[in-house]
Amino acid sequence: MKTYLDCIPCFLDQALRAGRIATNDEKTIKLLLDEVGDMIKDIPMENVPPVTGMLIYKKIRETTGIDDPYYKMKKKSTENALSLYPSLKEKVECCYDSLLKAIRLAIAGNVIDFGVNRTLNLENGIEITLNKKFAINDYNEFKKNLNKAKKILYIGDNAGEAVLDKILIEELNKPVTYVVRGIPVINDVIYEDAIDAGIGEVADIISSGTTAPGTILNTCNDDFIDRFNKADMIISKGMGNYEALSEVNRSVFFLLKAKCKVIANDLGVQENDIVLKGINL
Amino acid sequence: MKTYLDCIPCFLDQALRAGRIATNDEKTIKLLLDEVGDMIKDIPMENVPPVTGMLIYKKIRETTGIDDPYYKMKKKSTENALSLYPSLKEKVECCYDSLLKAIRLAIAGNVIDFGVNRTLNLENGIEITLNKKFAINDYNEFKKNLNKAKKILYIGDNAGEAVLDKILIEELNKPVTYVVRGIPVINDVIYEDAIDAGIGEVADIISSGTTAPGTILNTCNDDFIDRFNKADMIISKGMGNYEALSEVNRSVFFLLKAKCKVIANDLGVQENDIVLKGINL
Repeated sequence: MKTYLDCIPCFLDQALRAGRIATNDEKTIKLLLDEVGDMIKDIPMENVPPVTGMLIYKKIRETTGIDDPYYKMKKKSTENALSLYPSLKEKVECCYDSLLKAIRLAIAGNVIDFGVNRTLNLENGIEITLNKKFAINDYNEFKKNLNKAKKILYIGDNAGEAVLDKILIEELNKPVTYVVRGIPVINDVIYEDAIDAGIGEVADIISSGTTAPGTILNTCNDDFIDRFNKADMIISKGMGNYEALSEVNRSVFFLLKAKCKVIANDLGVQENDIVLKGINL
Repeated sequence: MKTYLDCIPCFLDQALRAGRIATNDEKTIKLLLDEVGDMIKDIPMENVPPVTGMLIYKKIRETTGIDDPYYKMKKKSTENALSLYPSLKEKVECCYDSLLKAIRLAIAGNVIDFGVNRTLNLENGIEITLNKKFAINDYNEFKKNLNKAKKILYIGDNAGEAVLDKILIEELNKPVTYVVRGIPVINDVIYEDAIDAGIGEVADIISSGTTAPGTILNTCNDDFIDRFNKADMIISKGMGNYEALSEVNRSVFFLLKAKCKVIANDLGVQENDIVLKGINL
């Protein structure tokens, strides 16, 4: 997905939010905003937004000296999600179509996104999302692909959300490789978060190597690219991965909640709609 | 009021909104955002925000070649407000305390603000605001000052809103000088808008001469400054004027709706609260 004009004030907004989490020093935060403001003229609109996200979060690390502003919030998200795991797992198991329910849950987990919003009531957010109609629903194609697939590449999105990914991975009932980011960026899932979420019990975990808040292929390591090119089935979670991968030449299933207007427009859905969209099927 | 960090992404947002109204050319709008991004490092946080607003709207005029992007929207706002005038006037006249009702209405008119939000249902917005409790209510002091005052300086805020100012001016029952901006900036009221609203029938109209979206004294003309220094009573409408005048050494009554978090925090109220606040009484 290309960068839209609306992304630009949002980049500043994200820098401000992350800056405030990293430090209380207003001068440092102002300096960060000055630097991000300066970067705007170098943002090519044809770039996918996570390219700019990558540069902005690098600037946040450099300016504040804090490598992982969201560290504590990620730990807390995972703890919260783990406390809900037993009841959510039960919901899935009681259900007539437990795979579809687990997909819904995995999308619902995508409400945990500090790039868009830093406060949320996880339980409420999940409940509201669980009861929404899909705005795009390629579930039949998803099932067909799943039945044929020997091995699945599952690209994670946020920490905490990974707990709900685990529930879906259990329902997929196939060998899964779970992909995390190379370094902390916003509250995106890294190796440690995936382990905390219990993903290690149900999947292999690899890093894509990217430092961006989305799986931009030319920022990923060779091992990931090789697996991406050879995967029988690719599941991509969340907005950042959609932004980075929506125009690749591989078959990909995107599971996400359209939490911002720009992505909703790009998908042709309404803000806050939930989506299970397959491309190149 | 000083500039807060939250104002900075908002400046970009305003440039984007105004740019889009001025032109459909995405490249021109991107150029505008580039230039506003570049300006961030030169924003001193101790400045009142309308100083930056003034520079940004100058940049919008220069980059898009459009001097008054909000021209048509202002005309439409005034027309809408005029169509409501008879029923609103009736509401005030039927009321036990018609002055307080007119103050409420004048504040309700402050929902017409394209700096904050470009879509609104005026009638709904007025109705919701009319039924809110004041978060700060210096009405008794307002009445005392009004009784003593021989002449009132009434600093207008937005076009359209001016129609509701007219209703309040009629209730004040004293000679009023109504102050407009020097040139079009956002949807702020200028001479033509005040005339359209019928203010000429109930008050003298003067221009403060400012090109900012708020009455920053050192950007105003001598005539205004003289009247400001000598006025028996000053009524200031809206957020931009509050930002510009909240720390002056004159007695001023601010009538506004706190439409953004920053101004709500500065006033110690909640977002969307309504305020009648007197200073230096």
